[in-house]
Amino acid sequence: MITRPSLDQIGIGAGKKTRLYRILYQHGVRNGTAIFLPYDHGLEHGPRDFAGDPGSGEPKHIIKLALEGGFNGIAIQIGLASKFYWEYAGEVPLVLKLNGKTDIPAPPDPLSPLNASVEEAVRLGADAVGYTLYVGSPAQERDFAQYLRVREDAARFGMPLIVWSYPRGAAIDARGGRDSFYAVDYAARTASELGADLVKVNFPQPAKQSGVPEPYRREISPQEAIDAVVRSANRTLLLVSGGEHAGDEAMLEKTRESMEAGATGLIFGRNVFQRSHDDSLRLVAQLKEILAKYPS
Amino acid sequence: MITRPSLDQIGIGAGKKTRLYRILYQHGVRNGTAIFLPYDHGLEHGPRDFAGDPGSGEPKHIIKLALEGGFNGIAIQIGLASKFYWEYAGEVPLVLKLNGKTDIPAPPDPLSPLNASVEEAVRLGADAVGYTLYVGSPAQERDFAQYLRVREDAARFGMPLIVWSYPRGAAIDARGGRDSFYAVDYAARTASELGADLVKVNFPQPAKQSGVPEPYRREISPQEAIDAVVRSANRTLLLVSGGEHAGDEAMLEKTRESMEAGATGLIFGRNVFQRSHDDSLRLVAQLKEILAKYPS
Amino acid sequence: MITRPSLDQIGIGAGKKTRLYRILYQHGVRNGTAIFLPYDHGLEHGPRDFAGDPGSGEPKHIIKLALEGGFNGIAIQIGLASKFYWEYAGEVPLVLKLNGKTDIPAPPDPLSPLNASVEEAVRLGADAVGYTLYVGSPAQERDFAQYLRVREDAARFGMPLIVWSYPRGAAIDARGGRDSFYAVDYAARTASELGADLVKVNFPQPAKQSGVPEPYRREISPQEAIDAVVRSANRTLLLVSGGEHAGDEAMLEKTRESMEAGATGLIFGRNVFQRSHDDSLRLVAQLKEILAKYPS
Amino acid sequence: MITRPSLDQIGIGAGKKTRLYRILYQHGVRNGTAIFLPYDHGLEHGPRDFAGDPGSGEPKHIIKLALEGGFNGIAIQIGLASKFYWEYAGEVPLVLKLNGKTDIPAPPDPLSPLNASVEEAVRLGADAVGYTLYVGSPAQERDFAQYLRVREDAARFGMPLIVWSYPRGAAIDARGGRDSFYAVDYAARTASELGADLVKVNFPQPAKQSGVPEPYRREISPQEAIDAVVRSANRTLLLVSGGEHAGDEAMLEKTRESMEAGATGLIFGRNVFQRSHDDSLRLVAQLKEILAKYPS
Amino acid sequence: MITRPSLDQIGIGAGKKTRLYRILYQHGVRNGTAIFLPYDHGLEHGPRDFAGDPGSGEPKHIIKLALEGGFNGIAIQIGLASKFYWEYAGEVPLVLKLNGKTDIPAPPDPLSPLNASVEEAVRLGADAVGYTLYVGSPAQERDFAQYLRVREDAARFGMPLIVWSYPRGAAIDARGGRDSFYAVDYAARTASELGADLVKVNFPQPAKQSGVPEPYRREISPQEAIDAVVRSANRTLLLVSGGEHAGDEAMLEKTRESMEAGATGLIFGRNVFQRSHDDSLRLVAQLKEILAKYPS
Repeated sequence: MITRPSLDQIGIGAGKKTRLYRILYQHGVRNGTAIFLPYDHGLEHGPRDFAGDPGSGEPKHIIKLALEGGFNGIAIQIGLASKFYWEYAGEVPLVLKLNGKTDIPAPPDPLSPLNASVEEAVRLGADAVGYTLYVGSPAQERDFAQYLRVREDAARFGMPLIVWSYPRGAAIDARGGRDSFYAVDYAARTASELGADLVKVNFPQPAKQSGVPEPYRREISPQEAIDAVVRSANRTLLLVSGGEHAGDEAMLEKTRESMEAGATGLIFGRNVFQRSHDDSLRLVAQLKEILAKYPS
Repeated sequence: MITRPSLDQIGIGAGKKTRLYRILYQHGVRNGTAIFLPYDHGLEHGPRDFAGDPGSGEPKHIIKLALEGGFNGIAIQIGLASKFYWEYAGEVPLVLKLNGKTDIPAPPDPLSPLNASVEEAVRLGADAVGYTLYVGSPAQERDFAQYLRVREDAARFGMPLIVWSYPRGAAIDARGGRDSFYAVDYAARTASELGADLVKVNFPQPAKQSGVPEPYRREISPQEAIDAVVRSANRTLLLVSGGEHAGDEAMLEKTRESMEAGATGLIFGRNVFQRSHDDSLRLVAQLKEILAKYPS
Repeated sequence: MITRPSLDQIGIGAGKKTRLYRILYQHGVRNGTAIFLPYDHGLEHGPRDFAGDPGSGEPKHIIKLALEGGFNGIAIQIGLASKFYWEYAGEVPLVLKLNGKTDIPAPPDPLSPLNASVEEAVRLGADAVGYTLYVGSPAQERDFAQYLRVREDAARFGMPLIVWSYPRGAAIDARGGRDSFYAVDYAARTASELGADLVKVNFPQPAKQSGVPEPYRREISPQEAIDAVVRSANRTLLLVSGGEHAGDEAMLEKTRESMEAGATGLIFGRNVFQRSHDDSLRLVAQLKEILAKYPS
Repeated sequence: MITRPSLDQIGIGAGKKTRLYRILYQHGVRNGTAIFLPYDHGLEHGPRDFAGDPGSGEPKHIIKLALEGGFNGIAIQIGLASKFYWEYAGEVPLVLKLNGKTDIPAPPDPLSPLNASVEEAVRLGADAVGYTLYVGSPAQERDFAQYLRVREDAARFGMPLIVWSYPRGAAIDARGGRDSFYAVDYAARTASELGADLVKVNFPQPAKQSGVPEPYRREISPQEAIDAVVRSANRTLLLVSGGEHAGDEAMLEKTRESMEAGATGLIFGRNVFQRSHDDSLRLVAQLKEILAKYPS
Repeated sequence: MITRPSLDQIGIGAGKKTRLYRILYQHGVRNGTAIFLPYDHGLEHGPRDFAGDPGSGEPKHIIKLALEGGFNGIAIQIGLASKFYWEYAGEVPLVLKLNGKTDIPAPPDPLSPLNASVEEAVRLGADAVGYTLYVGSPAQERDFAQYLRVREDAARFGMPLIVWSYPRGAAIDARGGRDSFYAVDYAARTASELGADLVKVNFPQPAKQSGVPEPYRREISPQEAIDAVVRSANRTLLLVSGGEHAGDEAMLEKTRESMEAGATGLIFGRNVFQRSHDDSLRLVAQLKEILAKYPS
């Protein structure tokens, strides 16, 4: 097991530390781990993502799930944050997602445009902001430019910055795809090099080797892969994404491996809310049971 | 008993509500009341205030007292906030006091100059800012001007603003002095009219009637006086100041009357820390016992 | 009878006209006249002004009075506007009073410092802003400087500007005092020359002639005096102040004369709210009966 | 012996730490102590201070003294920094003194006006900036205002801020004077409360008790006094000023007591340079011998 | 042998001189030469560059290597600088690399987008900033625009600017490629013409003549080539890049030739850290032995 870096080791000032302390030690399992509930699917995929369970389209229903489930934070876009968070202000940490896009069209050079600012996040009482960076996209120049402003503002306001570090684009597709160990490893490192406080990545799939650079063309276990990814992120705390709806046992196994590797926690959306309320709470309880075994 | 206004009734947005919720419901007695520990005496009076108990001059000792005593917040100046808070970031809410002055000289037109900004408070992770307003000072024009900028910034950043509303100057001295019911009542109302979220006032002394306007020249009980002051503050939450070191029983009585009147809580400094550590904790426990009887 | 200028004649753009139309034709008597309820006494005089009637200290009570009485607007400071107006937003027009001061001390060079901005008035949904100008004060230089910024902002945001044009200072005292025909006439003209959209003045007292310039040293009736004052204000709409609590008949007479002179209306505070709720409503009904006779 | 706070304990970021590390561990005795050479006497007192030794008026001579003596830094005004430092750039750390004044006239409300900015200090390659704060001066309002801007800029640029914390004014004169234990203790604390990284104070003279507040009216040794002053400064590193030319033995004793108390070092001007070059170097060697005994 | 320009000859002010003096005379061989350790491979190539030696992916390991090896500076991106440098602040000079990009995709018009500012470099205590300029890229217009802002800021803050001057693009490929004498020579001169203080170039390969302009189509030795490149850079100090991992003897030879030509030093990454720690230190010792022979 690799030890997660403590909040005293990662070069952050009082404001970022205060907010991360709140997220990691005053909510959820309260042991330095975290499970976040992301809920931007209405923008990123459209209401089709809520088809399975009608309640999942209701923001109020989801915030209540975050409260009842004892999440460490809920990550939403500016619209839902404005309309729904005030009612539960302070009860669950708010992660304001600052950029986002629809999934139509799907241009070859994806970029997630800003739709809110760090200052608004401060005004809303958020404890972190989120930014989607498309690693490998031909739009990197514009992406880095808007990211730079976000990172500087986050530093100025002592606001923790979570980077959704997503491999995307034809160059990625030609190198094992967005979930390949190579792509995830590079994405984790990129977020760290660019100064993210936390990074959200997909769980790496080392079997996806078609077209990946030489060092990634070898047989390794998922555990070895996630170990390497956490090392690549170094002092950027790592959150594992849930991705598309998968089987519960697969989720629990992925969680165990991630925590064993030194990840800080999870950011699970569809896997959590695309089911009945009770079933969601049951799964969350199981996930938190695992997190409880990895205090720091 | 007058009911304290709830956080939904006082016209604040999500950010101020988040931060006040944290202070009022996630620390201290967690029932909507508050006891704050102010510690700016080193600037306002100099180290002479720490003469009785050497430990009281050590900021680290005081922050630990705030943690052990379970205070709702600690109010300090920028210097101590920068040097000491990072170590305890998030463990106790920080109230950054934005202005302050030494007690020498003592000019006839007192004004407390700014020495920090709301933006710095955000960067440090503070949950509120404090501003000393000298009601009745001939320097009111400059005072209101710098207060205006602070209030606007506090609104912009969703940062609760606590006004230390202190009657001062010759006009006040000629009207019963700074603790007269008249002066305290006016001070509470002034803070409310000027948009403070919380106001810190001295406990009113209705016997001080020399020179006060007509309506205040009558026999009323301390309870009736504090009732009126809380009404004057209306939707500005009221905190009662400890003032100079007084007897414990007097403090407890003052606390009971204030809470009965609908005050939100206390902001006690010298009465709390100018004694041994154990004795401080004992008194705080007694005060919190009273606060526990006034949930909202 | 002098005809009041119509909204098409006073050189205002669409924004100011929209907001004034709302005030003058969609509230109150709806005939182009107005009766405003000012409520900044808690700041200007302190809670002593509410001594006679406890309810008068409750902002909520006063706003309800404005609604039940069918006022054309309520003029309050930023604090009460922030804490109370949201509940009644849009039900009665808001006049945000931008400056104010306590009545202690009482310096020889009075100035009313800003405590809010026109931009905040826009954000709160106000239909006008108020500014107190102390005509004759030795502080005129600073007064005009801050007034200039307010007027420019009001122009930029299409926000009607009501000037509380108050003669003050030793030079005024030496020339018949603040209510002399001379002083009021000069105050009305000053506001007009400086670009006020509306001006609030005291009712002129032509008998106060000690020390006034030659042309004002003559016997004229109150009606002639107020006629002249309205003419001096020309296309700046004129509101008559209630001043200290006076007899009802005097108030009604003053109202009749003002409207006859071409005033747009009244701005009555203490005379209206320093009495029982029912009595307040009765007086307001009488005043509106008079206003109804002066459509435009 | 009180331990000096380490650079990891005082809440500073990488920039301030880098520059302080350079000063404290890469120059002078290189053990965390410091001896600075201040040379602003030409502005503060005029060339009369150089009368004893003609060479002392030559900036180049003084910089060479700083180099040969192995000082931790030289503190000069913008003019000498611009004209002389480039020649020795990087060889000895530069402390750019940002404010200063002539000693004529000597107004009752002394204030040291700014004559350079932190940005200029960055541009010149300085490792710290100096600011004179006149504690107790009636000009405190303007003093704090300009200090605030300096402190904020110093934070923004990661530039250590040394406050020359000097008690001044009639209120100080009436309370034991500028060297009284009371005044020095208050001055040290004020700098700490206002966020100075280092503070320069005079050595306290506990015998000066005329008019001082009660707790200071007692017999204590110089050692006890400087112990208390260092405690009052807490995490603000303390430098002891040389003051007017005194005897060598007195200087050495003062140095021993200061270092024993936990001071970080010395800032000696006239005592060092108002003598022959060789004699200066001899004294500096003796002082550094003492500093060498207090590593941290 | 061509003499390197001294710091007094290159038209820089006190700040740049102070910082360069520190780099060139207070670290490394301390004779005016330099060997830098660049470590931005995690962003530029991804973690695959660390595959050979797991430790090489750990930023802490690399900083320790820089300290033990006695490097003149370490060049890293903002993320690693924020998270790791504070721990070693001041112990080794920091070169903050201001731009960077991933190696996927590889567009025909490469540009390295900014991800940090010179002001941040100042705040972190950096002694230089680095900027990658892609000479020959079709994106030159945007490249020069962002470079201009960096150079201006560097001038304003007295911060030395190192340009990574890299020939890139189809036009370069058609003229001998990025390492041709022609391309390197042009790159060195471009950086000098655009105001770089130092320039990092690849070692020129005069044999690559396919498509190069006429004057470069001749037989010259590597020594003559590097001599010419240093002359082209004139008063811009020249650093030779290590490039991809090569044989040790080739590196030493390249170093000898460069120093002989008047280069200021080396900036070697993969050749230094893609091996065991001890082996790295051994190679560095050999390189510094060569540098020691070229004092200035």
